[in-house]
Order: sequence, then C-alpha cells, then structure tokens
Amino acid sequence: MTITRREFLYSGAAVFAVGDAPGLKALVFDTFGTVVDSRSSIIAEGQALGRAKHLTVDWEKFADAWRAAYGPALNRVRTGQLPWTPLDALHRMMLDNVLADFGVKGLSEADIDELNHVWHRLTPWPDAVSGLTRLKKKFIIAPLSNGNVRLMTDMAKHAGLPWDLILGAELARHYKPDKEVYLTAAALLNLKPQEMMMVAAHQDDLRAAKALGFKTAFVKRPKEGPNGEHRPVEPIWDYVVDDFNELAARLGT
Amino acid sequence: MTITRREFLYSGAAVFAVGDAPGLKALVFDTFGTVVDSRSSIIAEGQALGRAKHLTVDWEKFADAWRAAYGPALNRVRTGQLPWTPLDALHRMMLDNVLADFGVKGLSEADIDELNHVWHRLTPWPDAVSGLTRLKKKFIIAPLSNGNVRLMTDMAKHAGLPWDLILGAELARHYKPDKEVYLTAAALLNLKPQEMMMVAAHQDDLRAAKALGFKTAFVKRPKEGPNGEHRPVEPIWDYVVDDFNELAARLGT
Repeated sequence: MTITRREFLYSGAAVFAVGDAPGLKALVFDTFGTVVDSRSSIIAEGQALGRAKHLTVDWEKFADAWRAAYGPALNRVRTGQLPWTPLDALHRMMLDNVLADFGVKGLSEADIDELNHVWHRLTPWPDAVSGLTRLKKKFIIAPLSNGNVRLMTDMAKHAGLPWDLILGAELARHYKPDKEVYLTAAALLNLKPQEMMMVAAHQDDLRAAKALGFKTAFVKRPKEGPNGEHRPVEPIWDYVVDDFNELAARLGT
Repeated sequence: MTITRREFLYSGAAVFAVGDAPGLKALVFDTFGTVVDSRSSIIAEGQALGRAKHLTVDWEKFADAWRAAYGPALNRVRTGQLPWTPLDALHRMMLDNVLADFGVKGLSEADIDELNHVWHRLTPWPDAVSGLTRLKKKFIIAPLSNGNVRLMTDMAKHAGLPWDLILGAELARHYKPDKEVYLTAAALLNLKPQEMMMVAAHQDDLRAAKALGFKTAFVKRPKEGPNGEHRPVEPIWDYVVDDFNELAARLGT
C-alpha cells in the first residue's frame, strides 16, 4: 500500500513517508535482540548442554542472568575500570560468574568455552535474512554491534546474514552507546551521519545515534523477553516497524 | 585428481598436498590485480570518458602511469612523510598529477571525482566470484587490501564478491607490507597467523605475510600487465595456483 506524504504526516506514526529517506546510503544494525533472538538460542543450547551433562539448571533464568550482566560489564569498560576488552572475553567473565551463582559444576574448560561461543551461533528472527537481502540491494548494510568482529563474522556465516561488511564496537575500541562507535562506522564508510540509519530494537541505541545525526528505525521485537525494550516507543524515530521486511518496503526496496 | 602426499612432495610444486592445510580458518586476499583486473577496468573507463569529453589520451599509458605512482605514494605514508591517508585520497593526489602530466584539461571536479572512483568499480577476474563462493563454504574470506574500507565495500557490491567481512590497511592505519596490516587482521579474527592464508598475485605481499607465520598462496595473473608480477615464482609459497577455483579444489572445497 502506498500512501501519500500528507496521509502519512497525519498518521503521526513517523517523520518520513514511504521511501522518503533522501541521501540514505547505509543502514547499520544493532544485532543482539534486533537481528537475532539471543534469549531463545541461549536457552536452547543451555538445555541441550544440561541434558548431556545431567545438570539441573533453569536455563531461562540462566540466560536472563547472563544477559543482565551485560550492561554492567560494558560499563566497566566504558568508564575505564577495565581496559578495552572484546565482548567474547567479557562474556566469559560474566559466564564464569553466572555458572558459580547457579552452582553449576562438572563442566570442562572446553564445555565452558563452547557455551561461551553460543553468541556466535544465535538464531536470526524469521524476517532477518529476507529483509536484509532486500535492503542490501539498495543500501550498504552492516552490523553495528557491541559484539567483536569474529563473533559477528561467525554469526553471519551461521545464520546466513548477508552483510556487506562488519562494523562495530571493536573497530572503535569503545562500546555503544559511546559516540566513537557510531562515528567510526561513518568514517570508515566515508559517509555523513545523516546518510546513515541506525536500526535497533533498543531505544537507547537509537537515541545515541540520533544525537549524532543518524536517521533511526525502531524495530519492535516483542518476543525478545525480559531484556527487551519495554518502555513506550518515543515518537521521535524516523521509522517504527514490525520487522525488516516492513522497513525494506518503507525504504522502497 | 587426488595425489598422495609422497607424490606431491616429489612434484616439487608446493609444500602442502591436496586439502593439506591443517588448522586453516581464514583466507585473506590482496585485491588489486589478484581479485580484480585493475588495469583493463581503468583503461575502459578512461576510454569512455575520453570519447564523452573529446580527449586525446593514450589510456593504456595513463592507467600504467597512475598505477606506477601507487607504490611511491604508499611509501610516503609508510615512511611518515604523510600522516595516515586513506587510499581514495592518495589515488586523487596521484590522479591530479597524472592528469597534469598527460595535459588533460576541461574535466570538471565531478568528472575527476568520478574517474577517481573507478577503483570502486573494478571488474573481477573471471574465476574470482565462483572461486570465492567455493572458498567461503569452508573458510572465512576477506580482502586484505591497501584499499580503504568504503572502496572495498563498493567494489564487492559492484562485482558481487561474497566477502564475509572487509579487512585491510585502513583498520590498521598502515599500508602493506607493514606488519601491522596482517597482524590487525589476525587480531580482529582472533586467529593465529598460521591459521590464516594470504592469497596474492604479488610476491612482496606474500613475503611479508609469510615472515609473520601466515600460510601463502601465489595466484598467477599473467594478464595483469606491466604492473604485475614478472619475477620468477619463488619456491617458498605453500600453494601456487592458476586461479581461485584451483585454490578451492586444492583446499578441498
């Protein structure tokens, strides 16, 4: 359905009408929760490990505890308490703590390392590959994640995500929402922030990008679970969409 | 054809037998001349521009002069005479000089900028896309070029190169053969040099990679023209191949 700009403006849903993003060259994506379903993937791998190793663990609570440690761990780097540390290493520090908190014993170093790498094997949301494939025809597409480059590379190969390149925190040696992450991506693509759009299911990420001049798209991911976005959607994002295919249609591709 | 390791050793052609690259995880590629046919692409675009603008230029000599300025320009950065400067900007400095040397007049700023971006639109060698597609099934594949990230991204979209990610000089802010370029790629992939293979049609590039512990593959590109490799192939590369499909077959994919 094509709607006129006037109809669109009166809908109050977003700033831009269909296909109305002049000068847009590149879309960069938050990944955990936005492109991939982190929580379900971790729960499923944990349950499989639990069966194999005869562990009695509530893997839903385990996954939520691991994810809840994420923000504080990033903040230790962002505030300078820790030097730059790639996310794989932070995930392992968090995992060791969560395993201790849940009283999990009897896992070998190889088991723990394998579990830590579950982030490299997360399952994409059902619309992610098809939507990204459409968006790639018209725009440069890249993850702009706190995940390290190898993590993002493995995830893309595992899930079939058709990125043009891998961008993200490790290239800036800063974690989102530090401005260096967004500005390093723009510099590497030789684009102005207003030629780029940040796509995320988390409004803090969009807020940081918008403050630098990026266009923004909020993707609703209601199945993301307790670590997802539960605040009201602010009326300040350029696009608010249900999934990547809707975003592709709205951007005329 | 499968040959035994013993037969292979006696062939004297290379160190590894078919599929014999234990622990190999990633292949990184020189691009100009190795993946894409730089010279023919530049000549063709130059000739088209010449017809449109009624210029009398020998575009073969023009392309060779532009390319001949490449090594010295990189060396100005490598020796500290120039601060870090992405290749697009170096290409433009060289192009302005070559245009003056050839007495080319009457081009607008937009014309010159468009010509400078010919490096973003180079044509792949006929085996490049099919060979890379095969190699991608088994290995992480990435360019490790002196071209800047945006140049490599545009080239991949233009030519259909199925890279997993873009690596290269700009991420290290050093130009090959400085060791930082190779070691930054290894660090971002969280791999040891011996888990990576440098693939190039230029032996200086392979020599620098080999000194750091990378495996090496020399690709013959006899049509590369006067700026190609004309020295005898040294007997020290792990693989010497005619094209990327032969490399894929030799690596068992």
